[in-house]
Amino acid sequence: MKKLINKPEDLVRESMAGLALAHPDIIKARFDPNIIYRADAPVENKVAVISGGGSGHEPMHTGFVGQGMLDAACPGEVFTSPTPDQIIEAARMVHGGRGVLNIVKNYSGDVMNFQMAAEILSAEGIACANVLIDDDVGVRGGVSTQGRRGVGTTVVAEKICGAAAEGGYDLERLEQLCYKVNLRGRSMGIALSSCTVPVRGIPTFELGDREMEVGIGIHGEPGYERQPLVTADAITEIISRAILEDMAYKRLVPTWDKASGSWVDKEITSEPYQPGDRLLAMVNGMGGTPLAELYIIYRKLEEVCQKAGLEIVRRLVGNYVTSLEMQGCSITLVKMDDELRQLWDFPVKTPALRWGV
Amino acid sequence: MKKLINKPEDLVRESMAGLALAHPDIIKARFDPNIIYRADAPVENKVAVISGGGSGHEPMHTGFVGQGMLDAACPGEVFTSPTPDQIIEAARMVHGGRGVLNIVKNYSGDVMNFQMAAEILSAEGIACANVLIDDDVGVRGGVSTQGRRGVGTTVVAEKICGAAAEGGYDLERLEQLCYKVNLRGRSMGIALSSCTVPVRGIPTFELGDREMEVGIGIHGEPGYERQPLVTADAITEIISRAILEDMAYKRLVPTWDKASGSWVDKEITSEPYQPGDRLLAMVNGMGGTPLAELYIIYRKLEEVCQKAGLEIVRRLVGNYVTSLEMQGCSITLVKMDDELRQLWDFPVKTPALRWGV
Repeated sequence: MKKLINKPEDLVRESMAGLALAHPDIIKARFDPNIIYRADAPVENKVAVISGGGSGHEPMHTGFVGQGMLDAACPGEVFTSPTPDQIIEAARMVHGGRGVLNIVKNYSGDVMNFQMAAEILSAEGIACANVLIDDDVGVRGGVSTQGRRGVGTTVVAEKICGAAAEGGYDLERLEQLCYKVNLRGRSMGIALSSCTVPVRGIPTFELGDREMEVGIGIHGEPGYERQPLVTADAITEIISRAILEDMAYKRLVPTWDKASGSWVDKEITSEPYQPGDRLLAMVNGMGGTPLAELYIIYRKLEEVCQKAGLEIVRRLVGNYVTSLEMQGCSITLVKMDDELRQLWDFPVKTPALRWGV
Repeated sequence: MKKLINKPEDLVRESMAGLALAHPDIIKARFDPNIIYRADAPVENKVAVISGGGSGHEPMHTGFVGQGMLDAACPGEVFTSPTPDQIIEAARMVHGGRGVLNIVKNYSGDVMNFQMAAEILSAEGIACANVLIDDDVGVRGGVSTQGRRGVGTTVVAEKICGAAAEGGYDLERLEQLCYKVNLRGRSMGIALSSCTVPVRGIPTFELGDREMEVGIGIHGEPGYERQPLVTADAITEIISRAILEDMAYKRLVPTWDKASGSWVDKEITSEPYQPGDRLLAMVNGMGGTPLAELYIIYRKLEEVCQKAGLEIVRRLVGNYVTSLEMQGCSITLVKMDDELRQLWDFPVKTPALRWGV
């Protein structure tokens, strides 16, 4: 294992400290429980937007805290859910009197812990909505999680909901907006190499010299197929076909019900793509892949979308949802409308995403 | 070799095409010769700032083209100098009537080709100044290049000179400014792994499971020492000590002399650091290193600088000067003054660096 770290158990804390030192005008860090929060929090009279999840996916989520995006992020240990006390403390610190939207990736630990936090916060009188992101079409039959995993669409939901919160949306409208983004987003990834969780010290999985894992999870969860490594163009076609051909996906998702103060399974259905749709496209590096390669993928993705009658109107190419030093990439497509596009373009100032300010 | 590419010989062109497709509001691409240039070029009544060098270091230089930074970048093949015709064509396309500043990294091929281009452009009546960046203190005794190599300070010079050009500096003042940045900047890198140039297909060098290369070059040039891998904190101390203890470095550098229309060796001397200095610090990933690890390095760097009585006033943490998928990092420090700081803060809108707009 070759990493630029000190003790594996200090990785999250030291990285958070460095992040806060490097961006003192944007964020602050606090420890035990570990939280990265906006330097100007709490922002009064605004719904607070919070996310969190295991570390090792940087810049997600800590790099997305700041004006126009998250109010706080709760980083768990590497590939480990944040604890309820982190989430509760973050909400207490940053809520500005209009409630809290938690954007939660669909992993059982995250779902459970955000649920516990929401119950306690609601009892304290802090209105709370949890919305799950479950956009990973690489999950077929749900190998290691319940339903689809939450991956790249999370970044888009955090940007768009952060902008909407800044623009005055109330909690209920914000909750609906976040559902909308999730229902319009789909992602899939492939890996060329494994990654090593520092406290374990050995690669999460083994992959042959000429193999790739198709449908990989961001924690190294196995994909739906192991294939011989093919060209960038062929990889782009495999991923984009899986995304574009994914039809209406109907499922029951635990949904926080404010009236009863508990979770209720609610049926939701993803919206399939239609010719004429306008898309946001993200080509995401897994951490160990050069930027030049991601642009090769993007080039082909634009061609594939054009052929399908889809227009890419916004793009993000780079490392946004990583898996430590894994080589590979994922593609996320989100169907846009005027509302989503305006919110996407809204100024944002975070360590990892910044424009307009 | 595992890469997200098609044919190795198409890498540069396809990656450029993807970059241009992903950032249509900022840049355009043209091919044969290969140039990335500002979408709004030529900008009249402004000195054009151009850079270039081998590909494989993305986002440098193509990702730094745009408002407030470069007018054009000339990407060579992977780890290969751009050709004179690329540089000449770029200058012809983007110059706005007030001359061209070429920011050149100190590698013999780059120096030679920018020289040939400047001679021809000057003969055409396009005023041209070439300024070399030679900031790599990892070169001791000049193993594989003449003098010190140009690395991280190049990014800072491109940002600051791009802002100054936008702000109305004439060519002579801009040339002096670029010298100033170079004399105030120092860098050094370490590698935990090698990288593979696609057309070669085998790693540039071999490194043991528990080894690191100290003073590594961005093309995999050997460093000054191979050591057992140590902690992130110890690595930060090794690099920052090498930078901070580097004294006045006197050398002859080829300098373009407009009067005679030829290169003249000019003596230049780097400025050593003094307690009380205010610094810009860049912690740069080599391409295969997770962002979380770079922030661990930054955390320690801030501590080391504080102890030395130096104040970091501006920072950049991320992948800016990469070496394909190499694991490792480099640190760049540049002594700032009010002029440099104001120019650093000037709005910039490029694919890889953006703020204020």
